[in-house]
Amino acid sequence: MASNHFGQIFRITTFGESHGPAIGVVIDGCPAGILLTKADIDTELSLRQPGGNPYTSPRSEKDEVDILSGVFESKTTGAPIALLIHNRDVDSSKYEPIKELLRPGHANFTYLEKYGIFDYRGGGRSSARETAARVAAGAVAKKLLAHYQIEVCAFVAAIGGIEIAEPNLSRLDTVRKKTFSSPIFCPDETAAKAMMAAIEKAKNEGDSLGGVLQGVAHLPPGLGDPVYCKLEALLAYAMLTLPATKGFEIGSGFAAARMKGSEHNDAFDIDDQGKVTTVTNFAGGTLGGISTGLPLTFRVAFKPTSSIQKPQKTVSTQGEQKEFLLPEGSRHDPCVAIRAVPIIEAMTALVLADALLMNRSAKV
Amino acid sequence: MASNHFGQIFRITTFGESHGPAIGVVIDGCPAGILLTKADIDTELSLRQPGGNPYTSPRSEKDEVDILSGVFESKTTGAPIALLIHNRDVDSSKYEPIKELLRPGHANFTYLEKYGIFDYRGGGRSSARETAARVAAGAVAKKLLAHYQIEVCAFVAAIGGIEIAEPNLSRLDTVRKKTFSSPIFCPDETAAKAMMAAIEKAKNEGDSLGGVLQGVAHLPPGLGDPVYCKLEALLAYAMLTLPATKGFEIGSGFAAARMKGSEHNDAFDIDDQGKVTTVTNFAGGTLGGISTGLPLTFRVAFKPTSSIQKPQKTVSTQGEQKEFLLPEGSRHDPCVAIRAVPIIEAMTALVLADALLMNRSAKV
Amino acid sequence: MASNHFGQIFRITTFGESHGPAIGVVIDGCPAGILLTKADIDTELSLRQPGGNPYTSPRSEKDEVDILSGVFESKTTGAPIALLIHNRDVDSSKYEPIKELLRPGHANFTYLEKYGIFDYRGGGRSSARETAARVAAGAVAKKLLAHYQIEVCAFVAAIGGIEIAEPNLSRLDTVRKKTFSSPIFCPDETAAKAMMAAIEKAKNEGDSLGGVLQGVAHLPPGLGDPVYCKLEALLAYAMLTLPATKGFEIGSGFAAARMKGSEHNDAFDIDDQGKVTTVTNFAGGTLGGISTGLPLTFRVAFKPTSSIQKPQKTVSTQGEQKEFLLPEGSRHDPCVAIRAVPIIEAMTALVLADALLMNRSAKV
Amino acid sequence: MASNHFGQIFRITTFGESHGPAIGVVIDGCPAGILLTKADIDTELSLRQPGGNPYTSPRSEKDEVDILSGVFESKTTGAPIALLIHNRDVDSSKYEPIKELLRPGHANFTYLEKYGIFDYRGGGRSSARETAARVAAGAVAKKLLAHYQIEVCAFVAAIGGIEIAEPNLSRLDTVRKKTFSSPIFCPDETAAKAMMAAIEKAKNEGDSLGGVLQGVAHLPPGLGDPVYCKLEALLAYAMLTLPATKGFEIGSGFAAARMKGSEHNDAFDIDDQGKVTTVTNFAGGTLGGISTGLPLTFRVAFKPTSSIQKPQKTVSTQGEQKEFLLPEGSRHDPCVAIRAVPIIEAMTALVLADALLMNRSAKV
Repeated sequence: MASNHFGQIFRITTFGESHGPAIGVVIDGCPAGILLTKADIDTELSLRQPGGNPYTSPRSEKDEVDILSGVFESKTTGAPIALLIHNRDVDSSKYEPIKELLRPGHANFTYLEKYGIFDYRGGGRSSARETAARVAAGAVAKKLLAHYQIEVCAFVAAIGGIEIAEPNLSRLDTVRKKTFSSPIFCPDETAAKAMMAAIEKAKNEGDSLGGVLQGVAHLPPGLGDPVYCKLEALLAYAMLTLPATKGFEIGSGFAAARMKGSEHNDAFDIDDQGKVTTVTNFAGGTLGGISTGLPLTFRVAFKPTSSIQKPQKTVSTQGEQKEFLLPEGSRHDPCVAIRAVPIIEAMTALVLADALLMNRSAKV
Repeated sequence: MASNHFGQIFRITTFGESHGPAIGVVIDGCPAGILLTKADIDTELSLRQPGGNPYTSPRSEKDEVDILSGVFESKTTGAPIALLIHNRDVDSSKYEPIKELLRPGHANFTYLEKYGIFDYRGGGRSSARETAARVAAGAVAKKLLAHYQIEVCAFVAAIGGIEIAEPNLSRLDTVRKKTFSSPIFCPDETAAKAMMAAIEKAKNEGDSLGGVLQGVAHLPPGLGDPVYCKLEALLAYAMLTLPATKGFEIGSGFAAARMKGSEHNDAFDIDDQGKVTTVTNFAGGTLGGISTGLPLTFRVAFKPTSSIQKPQKTVSTQGEQKEFLLPEGSRHDPCVAIRAVPIIEAMTALVLADALLMNRSAKV
Repeated sequence: MASNHFGQIFRITTFGESHGPAIGVVIDGCPAGILLTKADIDTELSLRQPGGNPYTSPRSEKDEVDILSGVFESKTTGAPIALLIHNRDVDSSKYEPIKELLRPGHANFTYLEKYGIFDYRGGGRSSARETAARVAAGAVAKKLLAHYQIEVCAFVAAIGGIEIAEPNLSRLDTVRKKTFSSPIFCPDETAAKAMMAAIEKAKNEGDSLGGVLQGVAHLPPGLGDPVYCKLEALLAYAMLTLPATKGFEIGSGFAAARMKGSEHNDAFDIDDQGKVTTVTNFAGGTLGGISTGLPLTFRVAFKPTSSIQKPQKTVSTQGEQKEFLLPEGSRHDPCVAIRAVPIIEAMTALVLADALLMNRSAKV
Repeated sequence: MASNHFGQIFRITTFGESHGPAIGVVIDGCPAGILLTKADIDTELSLRQPGGNPYTSPRSEKDEVDILSGVFESKTTGAPIALLIHNRDVDSSKYEPIKELLRPGHANFTYLEKYGIFDYRGGGRSSARETAARVAAGAVAKKLLAHYQIEVCAFVAAIGGIEIAEPNLSRLDTVRKKTFSSPIFCPDETAAKAMMAAIEKAKNEGDSLGGVLQGVAHLPPGLGDPVYCKLEALLAYAMLTLPATKGFEIGSGFAAARMKGSEHNDAFDIDDQGKVTTVTNFAGGTLGGISTGLPLTFRVAFKPTSSIQKPQKTVSTQGEQKEFLLPEGSRHDPCVAIRAVPIIEAMTALVLADALLMNRSAKV
């Protein structure tokens, strides 16, 4: 759990700043024998990239991975897998005029307090650019999970207060298909239409919107380790390491606080194949931090994008009161939640890959 | 982040089952030179104990700590601090009749799936009894934090849908006093009265209620480490390791998802002492995962107590459909959230103690 | 690798001081389903205890373990196993007169430099008493290893310059039997006789002797992880965490530095059962840090006991030059290496138990 | 302590294979504010490169580092520092003919046993090529140590049984200068001459030699953490993670096993400046695992290079008995110990940088 590491057995270390030469990740602990190609990773990276539509940032970040190590004859070897993504289309000059202003909703103030130095170009290490490295690592985790028929999926569940009707979670491939064919990664077409209208309106006002993402996984029972590696604890941790996240809930979540025990308890039953199941799934797929085998479902709250086109009150690093205005031509997502969909998938895959390997030591 | 460890520099390892001879914790990494007595810990433990009122469980768990190591002449020595709490008033016999039934909302099913064996007596390792060890460790963390004028505080913010009016967070000693003089750890007397009525009603119906707790801390700017040790990520992780938790949010939380950037961004300003501050605190005390110096505020959702007095549908470990009914004389809290108040304080103290020590390596 | 932790998946945390109420260890990560009784552990502890002979300390440390958690119906459950050993026969009063003198060869000077405080009673945390907790944990590790036919063994290889003739390493049960039937844990009776004479002589002169221990294990190929978890690196680390150790060598060790490649390289061959083997075993059982399947063999150097009955030059904590003389009636081993035999076994078992579990993630 | 990680607060993760596109390292936990340039690292890398003399390999490995992250305006920022070294002058074709033969003294057998797959090109991940990444990371650690006047140094102490006269260890800059002006990194010119003759002889016979390196550091008292982070334990671990190492000893080392307590105990005294010192330094600079402030001195044994020009007996991966002969034109060091000198320095610097930061949490 060190500062730039994530995971215990399937461990990643990410590095790189928004405007440096490259960002990347080293995966330590990926088992040998997994088929892995550059295309497996590039496919996932392409989902994270700003699309050719008005709902995401117009930056052109065509990301491609270089696999530097750990793969031989298209198979993982057990050696660390280093993945490099070069930064392109980078122009640091426009950050010059605002480098001495604290940016509302951004991290330059706290980095300066902590480190006494801040790479202000594009947000430096605090930039969401770092998440591309997670998506690359997540692509590898997904390949491992696929061996064991574990599937993950995420989608937009709400934007600007507009909520979707929850899709049928029994077939994740279908949900995923619908999600990634939507310009805003939302599987409910009706809701998506309303969301897009709201986004356009906010954008025209120089403003931004928040949103909620939902994550789902199909997995066997027994994953997750008590007490301090409960599956929901690792997921909450994983999600809150993402920029702009403000909350996490599993299953019934905050609604559980308004329920009674007799409503909330998921009664155990036997399913058609004679396996133990529960009638409802308010738990969201875990009990005591260990997976039940029912769908793992959780939601993550995102704040509205902090970079907006309106003037804002702020102070300078010298302590003078100033007005903050984004430089002309700045390019930002009107709703950061949207592009986080593949990132939530990646983080879920990383948590589950690790839980899968940790579980190998559960029994003698 | 191993299964029974928590923290990186200020690290704890807890052990023990509900009906074993004792539970305990080893703290590794506590700096030398802190004044520490048994009374410091027993005081905190007493807050976690079931009270003499109808709103918590009637069990008699008068907990007292044995300090086994790490303290010499009332000061910490830098050696690991082992704390032992004996289990008393334990009667395992009443778990016999239900040991082969899956308990709705409980972990026996998943433990059996994972380990092939389950200490069913009082929930074994999955019991909330384990949290007493966290409170003991948290008492030590608080002593460390007190050296640096860092304060933590938690209270009941909602039960059964009844919400409090948020207290003034500028003086945590006052909030804490109000909280712990309330039988249900709620600083808002009016709301508390309504909550107590709701609890009594649920209890009479053999049912239980969920709730929301709020945590607050006063701390300097600069604590928390990007990227994977963001303060809110560590807090979310810490809170979701607690039994019965379903969600975590920092600052604006899930409400942020319905806000606009122009509303949500906290404008920077200069305060009376010439220090940087923000006009609002939707962020909840962090930016980029690092503390701003403003109050750290977060909320945790608890499900209603799973142990209820009503019959429930379930299956046996042999796969037969059965009815589950709690044994006569079972003693459970009608709302587990209440007794979690000192536990939330303890977990917050543990996160901050660790962040404080990690921060010592931020600069050369 | 935190200060009082050892291991990664099979992790231990030890605690306790020489003259505190108890010492102990928490094992986190032991798989469920291992048969484990108090007797399994007490048997190992008895080997570490000072014997009824003149070659070890006359202290009476009849150690017995309390299993506080992690075992249910004589089987490990996957929960942390806490083991407690009470300190008995403790008399701190005789440390009073020397508490302000730096003890040659001891740690009070460095602890004071580091922590500003030192529990001087019996050496506090720096006492070899801590190794009893390792032996207890090692007993559990051995039970795990036994499931997989992995055996460990250690013995005295040299004392005061007297070297043994290496026993036949093909049957470790035989070597172990010979070792533990010797009063000085030496499987070579002839050498043992000479060693005992040397020890008596040193003791009569108020002096002490150093020694070398050898460790051996039978294990399958494939254990140990490159690059920073090489088996020999973990063993070297494990052994040098023991008090009084000055060196570690695997296989040919320091002698390798005087050999030629053509002598040292172990030629590969096929054995009677058609399995790959090597003609010689200068490597000592690993290549590239991973076990070859041949016997793992290593040696550990111990300095002579620092506590001697002769007057020594020293200074006080106030910086005055003084003479150091052990208090009347002080009880110390004339050669600490001897009692380290079961400790070396325990540390080897801990390293291999961890390597065994880590290896479960090597392949998909 | 995961497989490709080293260190706890100042942590490195290395990656890369001998014949892949690049090797590298990510440093996580380096404090902000250290001046760091590419030249600082390239200087250290140049020391590790094969020289223009007959005593090291004739490969042309002109290594240069790319700093990918963590440095802004020539200062470390607290963000992870990723360092990349491209592999050049790589020709994998000559490994083709021997790819199905187990190489005596090499790791292909054990990697195949463990992972079921092996990147045989140049030894893949098991190649000593990986140590270039350690040297790069060590260069950064040295910059941190230099802030605190901590110096490290290593040199050849013995080759083929020829031992040096130990240099005066009071001025490490002088020792270092002598060492790096010697073609075989040996500060004793007379011994060096004899060693070079021995190397030439072995080389002409198609053979190789082993050696011993000595490491030394000047550091303040108080570094190193009991019990499982003793300075000598971390050093032993660090050194045995290096390819071809067979042993480690601190201070008196294995010679201690032949000494008496009255000889070995270092008497405490007061030095000219009124500071506590010891008359001798058999301890090698630590007591109880914590530095005393006296020079830290240790020795590391290296086996003779496994790649020799003589035919050797071996078996194929299919289990047939074969003769192993290095391909024509293979380039190897006749004595690997020599080029390990800057690597030992780097590993020592990494251990001490970590110990320095860990020590910041020793006291309140």
